[in-house]
Amino acid sequence: MPKISSKGLQMPASPIRKLTPYAEKAKRDGKIVYHLNIGQPDIETPAGMIDAIKNIDFKVWAYTQSEGTPEYRKKLTEYYVKNGYSITPEDILVTDGGSEALTIAISACMDHGEEVIVPEPFYANYNAFTCLADVVVKPIRSTIETGFALPPISEFERMITPKTKAILICSPNNPTGYLYSREELEELKRLVLKYDLFLISDEAYREFCYDGKKFISPGHLEGLEDHFIMIDTVSKRYSACGARLGALVTRNKEVFASALKYAQARLAPPAVAQIAATAAVDTPQSYFDEVIKEYTERRNLLVSSLNKMEGVYCPNPGGAFYAVVRLPIDDSDRFCEWILDKFSYENQTVMMAPATGFYSTAGGGRNEVRMAYVINQEHLKKAMICLEKALLEYPGRMLDNLKTNTILAS
Amino acid sequence: MPKISSKGLQMPASPIRKLTPYAEKAKRDGKIVYHLNIGQPDIETPAGMIDAIKNIDFKVWAYTQSEGTPEYRKKLTEYYVKNGYSITPEDILVTDGGSEALTIAISACMDHGEEVIVPEPFYANYNAFTCLADVVVKPIRSTIETGFALPPISEFERMITPKTKAILICSPNNPTGYLYSREELEELKRLVLKYDLFLISDEAYREFCYDGKKFISPGHLEGLEDHFIMIDTVSKRYSACGARLGALVTRNKEVFASALKYAQARLAPPAVAQIAATAAVDTPQSYFDEVIKEYTERRNLLVSSLNKMEGVYCPNPGGAFYAVVRLPIDDSDRFCEWILDKFSYENQTVMMAPATGFYSTAGGGRNEVRMAYVINQEHLKKAMICLEKALLEYPGRMLDNLKTNTILAS
Repeated sequence: MPKISSKGLQMPASPIRKLTPYAEKAKRDGKIVYHLNIGQPDIETPAGMIDAIKNIDFKVWAYTQSEGTPEYRKKLTEYYVKNGYSITPEDILVTDGGSEALTIAISACMDHGEEVIVPEPFYANYNAFTCLADVVVKPIRSTIETGFALPPISEFERMITPKTKAILICSPNNPTGYLYSREELEELKRLVLKYDLFLISDEAYREFCYDGKKFISPGHLEGLEDHFIMIDTVSKRYSACGARLGALVTRNKEVFASALKYAQARLAPPAVAQIAATAAVDTPQSYFDEVIKEYTERRNLLVSSLNKMEGVYCPNPGGAFYAVVRLPIDDSDRFCEWILDKFSYENQTVMMAPATGFYSTAGGGRNEVRMAYVINQEHLKKAMICLEKALLEYPGRMLDNLKTNTILAS
Repeated sequence: MPKISSKGLQMPASPIRKLTPYAEKAKRDGKIVYHLNIGQPDIETPAGMIDAIKNIDFKVWAYTQSEGTPEYRKKLTEYYVKNGYSITPEDILVTDGGSEALTIAISACMDHGEEVIVPEPFYANYNAFTCLADVVVKPIRSTIETGFALPPISEFERMITPKTKAILICSPNNPTGYLYSREELEELKRLVLKYDLFLISDEAYREFCYDGKKFISPGHLEGLEDHFIMIDTVSKRYSACGARLGALVTRNKEVFASALKYAQARLAPPAVAQIAATAAVDTPQSYFDEVIKEYTERRNLLVSSLNKMEGVYCPNPGGAFYAVVRLPIDDSDRFCEWILDKFSYENQTVMMAPATGFYSTAGGGRNEVRMAYVINQEHLKKAMICLEKALLEYPGRMLDNLKTNTILAS
């Protein structure tokens, strides 16, 4: 039998999806599973977007332009300008989701063996996208004690080598929910200008900022025109994850030209999704106001419930709909499997993503999980009760150990 | 300014799309452009597929499973079984078009620097997909004199090195239209078993076989279960290129497991397309009968028109909707640009793809173009008249040189 690739073997399985067989078994066994493991919002997609799908009027479901339709790129520009970016349609490459935007950005900017620095914990699939291109991730640890703020810039400088090509950030952050401040971004700006690096900014959660905080992008800062590459998607903004529509946005013409060649090779992004996303740009502000209100309430519920549990610590995330939570456990992979496989409370259980998959440093996240608050408040309350019971029952409970850690770290 | 990647620089531009600016200029100048450059069929998408889009009834446009929905994988299995394959839903990974299926297959099977042998000319984007993974294409020349039949198997053997991991074929072929015979596939089978290689089979044009010829896949041969990887797509089958929906199909469990990890990283294939493609499996045979009749007539028109022109040679393709045609010209890149930019006949011109982009050997295809017969017969006739006039007028006409070549080759 022919051998598969080494990178295919080494490629990490998705920490968000790998426990699916246990969840399916739990459901077959009649348990209710509360899904906090995946960023699939339960929020309804805007009606204008759904109507646009139902009203398609083509007879031939044809390829669009590789870079996206002129209509969509023009309309999307409206959205970006409204959000404070200096962008023209020529800066926008429409992609198959944010995933493809990042895959293309990596290959457009980096060769085999080159390095990208990423604050850790980070979105687990960054490992996969870099693995695909044999690019090396250099993680810099952010910590739960600071709420996962930007690590000191001196640590970035220590990590820079001749092979470093880019810094990759995500704000509001998946998995931590941390929202970078203008000051933090200014520090990053000085760094990338000093070392002439790309600053790749994953902005999938731009809309989701709480407590009146404003989203700031490196794209809002002057002087980064040649360095800034934005990764965007309609998935979370419009609760349209199934559309698989994203964008790579850059004013760097060389990056754009290179990215376009990759885009031409895969021919085109999906046509119906572009029609729907064009309509989505006109979604009224009231839609977002309601969504933000709902997420804020959920976050408050989640954070306050968690911090009341013995040995549990959850910082208060400023954005997105995730939190990385420290639990009094020996091993988050074991715990997340155990709670699905061996535990139930009133016939209910909870699915979470072990945070280990969000660290590339071995050992990182062993007592942390990522939770996505994408279920309604009633279910969220029940999930929290379940979790509290489970933590008390879990054979690998490690309260003392954790207390010590917390004291040491504080 | 930070430097882009070398592979981004070296990445070839799409020969199918790179002349687009000239075509757009021609249109702005008021010329009618007959598009023979791109495999975008003008055939209508089946009504059942369009209706399925209009009748979507979800409120949240959610991610599907990374490997595709259970409904679609089950329904697609029906289609494959009807077409003579031993396939179960577990062998099917649904992808973002055939492009992603091939990208994933390459990374699942091959590491940086490993080699895949491909009969040449081949679909230009194979260069891009291999470039993305730093995999090396080793071309073996098929020739217009044999109608682009499989080159002697001894030439494949000569090309095999310790780094060879796979052979990649496409039948019916894009760009040549050649349809491999059972005997040719049996020869390839013996070869891949002898050297323990993967046989990756791009079957995008399975439906399009003419003159009563039957499509044969390596997947129809016994004993290739661990070696065969099928690349499939709904793009051409249902004239649904804009759906961006394909599949990687293999019974090799290791390949599937590796491929699934890449698929999980990009989360999911498009949701609406899967709903529509599920409906498409029930497209009546009469739809295909009409389409095949239409393409057969177009092919006959194209081939006979071309072979009547002085110095032009076009083999009679057995399938797909492409032909690689030899023209009495000095340089196909120059000619295809010239005919758009400098030429018109009764205010019309023709867009074709220079065949150079379908060869990875330098110099290959310099007097050949690829034509896709995806326009109606009336327009096809006009395009042929245009081309004939253009060839007489083209400053780089090289009739004598070509005659010599033809005599030598026959």
